[in-house]
Amino acid sequence: MQRTSFARMHCSLARSLEVMGDWWTPLILRDLYFGLGRFADLVENLGVSRNLLSARLATLVERGLIERRRYSDHPPRDRYVLTTAGRELVPVLMALTAWGDRWVGPSAGPPVRFQHRACGHIVKPEIVCSHCSRRLVADQVVPRRGPGRRAARGTRLIGRGRLQRPAIGAPRAARKSSGA
Amino acid sequence: MQRTSFARMHCSLARSLEVMGDWWTPLILRDLYFGLGRFADLVENLGVSRNLLSARLATLVERGLIERRRYSDHPPRDRYVLTTAGRELVPVLMALTAWGDRWVGPSAGPPVRFQHRACGHIVKPEIVCSHCSRRLVADQVVPRRGPGRRAARGTRLIGRGRLQRPAIGAPRAARKSSGA
Repeated sequence: MQRTSFARMHCSLARSLEVMGDWWTPLILRDLYFGLGRFADLVENLGVSRNLLSARLATLVERGLIERRRYSDHPPRDRYVLTTAGRELVPVLMALTAWGDRWVGPSAGPPVRFQHRACGHIVKPEIVCSHCSRRLVADQVVPRRGPGRRAARGTRLIGRGRLQRPAIGAPRAARKSSGA
Repeated sequence: MQRTSFARMHCSLARSLEVMGDWWTPLILRDLYFGLGRFADLVENLGVSRNLLSARLATLVERGLIERRRYSDHPPRDRYVLTTAGRELVPVLMALTAWGDRWVGPSAGPPVRFQHRACGHIVKPEIVCSHCSRRLVADQVVPRRGPGRRAARGTRLIGRGRLQRPAIGAPRAARKSSGA
């Protein structure tokens, strides 16, 4: 079954998913960030078929997230590296990893931690306001119409401006509260 | 074809993807955050089939990201709302949206902007170090082994500690440089 394309949706989230939303793609980007740039290393670490990996890498090159670099001429050897666009995704993946550590991670603790060179500490990525530097939480951010909006598939209502401000004090339920 | 499950990988990124990585899922979470909690609104906005949407919503309820709430008894009416776990994903989705605005967004500009209640400004989500508050960039963060690591499928090498620090000054290429 052909998957719906998000490429032309008038939503930057949908387009981001189109670019990097293949099932294995975020883990490939993770591995390149971890320094596993060689094809054989990726195959071994991920446990994927060479065919699947080749296809995913080709797509990522085409979309500008990674590129292939020759690191040895004799014998000829290539590795894959993140481009600027790919590198700018890394903190987003770190933030998603931190969410995973908190909500669905292994009971033994985080498999990987991140040490910040600038301050030397093991860090948790935090998502803050570019203006006031306070931490962004869902309730405190109000979606507003932007110039690129349009009512079309995927944004039929929100493209017409159907953006409500999230209710304050709305339910804070689910797992965390079950232990209270 | 059955998709590989990431649920038991020793990687919090993989597990996050397992929980919210279905193709339409991030857009459903987006819509709930935008206040489109009713089934009919979701169908109209996304342009998906009722069957597909029902299945995705059921999965999200089961995984604890959303819950179903009755908002009217006569007639009986339900809507879906984000749980705490779901709400904590919202800033991550905003960060991914900001990446999309920058790299793949509509040429007319961002379809949606985010206004921060705390300071009143239209904001760009930034991902910073929880310790020193400086912005996290890939080169400045070094992955370290955590207690939950294990060498198994998906983490065969990195679970054994194959984490390299990313090269400084590594290629900053791809799209942005093509216009230079």
